[in-house]
Amino acid sequence: MKVLFIGDIVGSIGRDTLEDYLPRLKRKYQPDVVIANGENAASGRGITKKIFQDLLFMGVDVVTMGNHTWDQKEIFDFIDDTDYLIRPANFSDDAPGRGMTNVTKNGHTLSVINLHGRTFLPPHDDPFKKATELVKEAKELSPLIFVDFHAEATSEKIAMGWHLDGEVSAVVGTHTHVQTADARIFPGGTAYITDVGMTGPYDGVLGMKKEDVLYRFKTNMPVRFEVPKTGRSVLSGFFVELDNQTGKAVSFERVYINEDYPFKG
Amino acid sequence: MKVLFIGDIVGSIGRDTLEDYLPRLKRKYQPDVVIANGENAASGRGITKKIFQDLLFMGVDVVTMGNHTWDQKEIFDFIDDTDYLIRPANFSDDAPGRGMTNVTKNGHTLSVINLHGRTFLPPHDDPFKKATELVKEAKELSPLIFVDFHAEATSEKIAMGWHLDGEVSAVVGTHTHVQTADARIFPGGTAYITDVGMTGPYDGVLGMKKEDVLYRFKTNMPVRFEVPKTGRSVLSGFFVELDNQTGKAVSFERVYINEDYPFKG
Amino acid sequence: MKVLFIGDIVGSIGRDTLEDYLPRLKRKYQPDVVIANGENAASGRGITKKIFQDLLFMGVDVVTMGNHTWDQKEIFDFIDDTDYLIRPANFSDDAPGRGMTNVTKNGHTLSVINLHGRTFLPPHDDPFKKATELVKEAKELSPLIFVDFHAEATSEKIAMGWHLDGEVSAVVGTHTHVQTADARIFPGGTAYITDVGMTGPYDGVLGMKKEDVLYRFKTNMPVRFEVPKTGRSVLSGFFVELDNQTGKAVSFERVYINEDYPFKG
Amino acid sequence: MKVLFIGDIVGSIGRDTLEDYLPRLKRKYQPDVVIANGENAASGRGITKKIFQDLLFMGVDVVTMGNHTWDQKEIFDFIDDTDYLIRPANFSDDAPGRGMTNVTKNGHTLSVINLHGRTFLPPHDDPFKKATELVKEAKELSPLIFVDFHAEATSEKIAMGWHLDGEVSAVVGTHTHVQTADARIFPGGTAYITDVGMTGPYDGVLGMKKEDVLYRFKTNMPVRFEVPKTGRSVLSGFFVELDNQTGKAVSFERVYINEDYPFKG
Ligand SMILES: [Fe+2]
Ligand SMILES: [Fe+2]
Ligand SMILES: [Fe+2]
Ligand SMILES: [Fe+2]
Ligand SMILES: [Fe+2]
Ligand SMILES: [Fe+2]
Ligand SMILES: [Fe+2]
Ligand SMILES: [Fe+2]
Repeated sequence: MKVLFIGDIVGSIGRDTLEDYLPRLKRKYQPDVVIANGENAASGRGITKKIFQDLLFMGVDVVTMGNHTWDQKEIFDFIDDTDYLIRPANFSDDAPGRGMTNVTKNGHTLSVINLHGRTFLPPHDDPFKKATELVKEAKELSPLIFVDFHAEATSEKIAMGWHLDGEVSAVVGTHTHVQTADARIFPGGTAYITDVGMTGPYDGVLGMKKEDVLYRFKTNMPVRFEVPKTGRSVLSGFFVELDNQTGKAVSFERVYINEDYPFKG
Repeated sequence: MKVLFIGDIVGSIGRDTLEDYLPRLKRKYQPDVVIANGENAASGRGITKKIFQDLLFMGVDVVTMGNHTWDQKEIFDFIDDTDYLIRPANFSDDAPGRGMTNVTKNGHTLSVINLHGRTFLPPHDDPFKKATELVKEAKELSPLIFVDFHAEATSEKIAMGWHLDGEVSAVVGTHTHVQTADARIFPGGTAYITDVGMTGPYDGVLGMKKEDVLYRFKTNMPVRFEVPKTGRSVLSGFFVELDNQTGKAVSFERVYINEDYPFKG
Repeated sequence: MKVLFIGDIVGSIGRDTLEDYLPRLKRKYQPDVVIANGENAASGRGITKKIFQDLLFMGVDVVTMGNHTWDQKEIFDFIDDTDYLIRPANFSDDAPGRGMTNVTKNGHTLSVINLHGRTFLPPHDDPFKKATELVKEAKELSPLIFVDFHAEATSEKIAMGWHLDGEVSAVVGTHTHVQTADARIFPGGTAYITDVGMTGPYDGVLGMKKEDVLYRFKTNMPVRFEVPKTGRSVLSGFFVELDNQTGKAVSFERVYINEDYPFKG
Repeated sequence: MKVLFIGDIVGSIGRDTLEDYLPRLKRKYQPDVVIANGENAASGRGITKKIFQDLLFMGVDVVTMGNHTWDQKEIFDFIDDTDYLIRPANFSDDAPGRGMTNVTKNGHTLSVINLHGRTFLPPHDDPFKKATELVKEAKELSPLIFVDFHAEATSEKIAMGWHLDGEVSAVVGTHTHVQTADARIFPGGTAYITDVGMTGPYDGVLGMKKEDVLYRFKTNMPVRFEVPKTGRSVLSGFFVELDNQTGKAVSFERVYINEDYPFKG
């Protein structure tokens, strides 16, 4: 099975950039499943029903989330009605929605798990313990398991990679919005990258207008960050090919597209 | 001027790996100046006089530091005696050592500045203000200025990149120990990478034994992290070529060497 | 000189409680100056011009602020027009308003300084250095100096108390909304209390509806905290009598009024 | 049943102060059970077997702990051999020791529970959920339940007070080392105080030498904090009388003894 993962889609520039490149990426990588992190899809803050449906329409199979999951209040109205939008599994038992889903394509089932880190972040339930539980459950269905670990600290993400090495097909990090260069296959067969990076404005700070963020850093004064509506864009993704029998990763490729790193078809 | 920067050297594996590759890197990149972050050179914690001297002997011209600057107490004995080991410039005015130095090679002078972030880190002096002050001072000497910004958050590092774009030759991030894939030249001519990554053990967590780090994450129990003495290694660096007249970056190349990404001479 | 300080006024219950008790407190303590922290006066978030004027009308001479200073955007319109509302002095040089003011009553001038902590809080400018600067400036006018240090950590507040012992008349902490029992006069003559506590709802959590706060702690889900409009209230204050010649504190009294600790006239 | 709780004992001054006053406190309050937080008893960092035994010999029935539980490595050797030293119950399942114990005096059994906060602290297991579980278990034995909640944030502690109101006899906070003035009995019958405060040096910062702590705050440089060996001391405690049938608190008294607040027999 071939899986293409798209990193945090930020605002309309992010959505437009995905719409623009996804057909070409599909031609190039022939993914069976497309997963995208959508926690910033609505103006940088959460996701709406319409945007979620637009992503499905573009060809995204599963949307994962993160710390911005609840930013758009309407998510409470539709998250329990879909199997294809998941939020971190180690959120509270009282939270709506769920943290794992399955998608079957071409006769093979992939479990997709979303987890949330705790370093420099709120004290959600233990992501390592939750990972172990969910992987056990997922394995009864299929050895093909894909994990989006939404976390800040490189240490916590690499630790999760080692924790799940040999247990899942891939662990990809999201949240820092900057793609890392450390993609690899761990000795146990798990593909790993510390952060996939973001899909959205190329000339801001994590997708937000750079002037606003700089003002905040320089003054510690309150500023409402905005996603620019125009300008250059970046698309960040991670492609991985899995062995359907063992669930192990066979090969991978970082996807990083912007004016400095143009798409090669 | 050509500058080669080596990311956080961790422990003896890190030092040995640098010693092993530096001659080949010099042949390949022909750097005029070699800078290395040495905050983890002594068993992952700080630097000793002997290790500092070993780095100079290997061919490092300037050593930069970070949050681990003071871990080895003997640094207090030699930091004020050398021009070639700098610590973050926005440390307290009461701290020994200094945060900027100059190195002249082949008739051209490069100023090297070390700064420290504050997001998820102690409240050091404002790195943005300090950067502006030091850059002004450095420019009186030469347009060639290289900044090592030791910081955790991707947002703070990218913000510093934009803050200094057009003002300095290069801003490289350190501290997260994971190389990022976002190297670029900003519109104003400043080369930038969010994190250069580390030089040391390849199969740990940020250079520390993975079992220890995992135990900490899984239990929140105290563990003393150790750098493994043996095993595979990684070398992370960043090469940049500068225009001697304008100080602007002309080209760059990420350096990332390990078994998965072997050195190409 | 006699000074009465009122801790963080939270919402309409807080304002009404102050209005209710202030006449009686004035009869009891005969303060020359009344200072009140108003950072939560407007529904728990910042202060409006109308509320500020209401506080002055009640008999408050100086209003201090804290991390909620900018929550009500209209403060930007009036903060530079008044001498009697100050915000933490170690906010950015770019922030409007100022951090020290003077009030003269019965022939004696009191300087009031507002500072902000940095532990578990944003990296504002160094409050210890700023305190030293402002105290030097204030002393040229009068030895009577009152400091509201808005900070989270007990360690940072006590350290500030020792830092200014003998330099100012009183250092009172605010921000935790819980009055501490450690009021004392330090050996150098500075009156001190780690936190004065809050003035507002008695049966919430820091003035907010307890159900909302508990839900947040139990689930880490987003909740908008609200100040209850009705219910029992608490008033927290600190009274100090100063020697006009030396500026030293002569005596102090904690003021803590609620159903469990009723007012004694 | 009458219970006397002693707040964080810091170093030899703290132990000596307790030894000095405990006989007088026993005469005054006639406690059936004496509980003391011992997390800083050994030079400010953890507890040794000898110090633990000394505390029992003085008349302490149960010792509770906190974030410094594991600072003295020898605790791993004896924590599982005693029923009278407990550590936070929401530490990892893999941690040695336990978080609840029972002590029977004069025919009545008191359960003592130790919990740890998570705000500004590591992501231990959910203390609210753990509290509910343990209280359920304890209630099968006796309605007399005493909780030491070791936490930083006033909000988290007050929230725990409300969470357990009517479920336990008393919730006392520890960790900030400063006694709060907000002791009360909640409407459901649970005695509460946000922080009991510490027992140890009176003229330091949280029991540590003030010069060291100030140096850290002023410079962000590393300093090893030390507990002074001599000087004035403070003892902080909380006394509560419980109804043996209902488990509800009948009355309470803050205990705060130092030169400014001398003991009244
Ligand atoms: Fe994101
Ligand atoms: Fe995120
Ligand atoms: Fe490092
Ligand atoms: Fe570092
Ligand atoms: Fe407040
Ligand atoms: Fe506040
Ligand atoms: Fe303590
Ligand atoms: Fe503690």
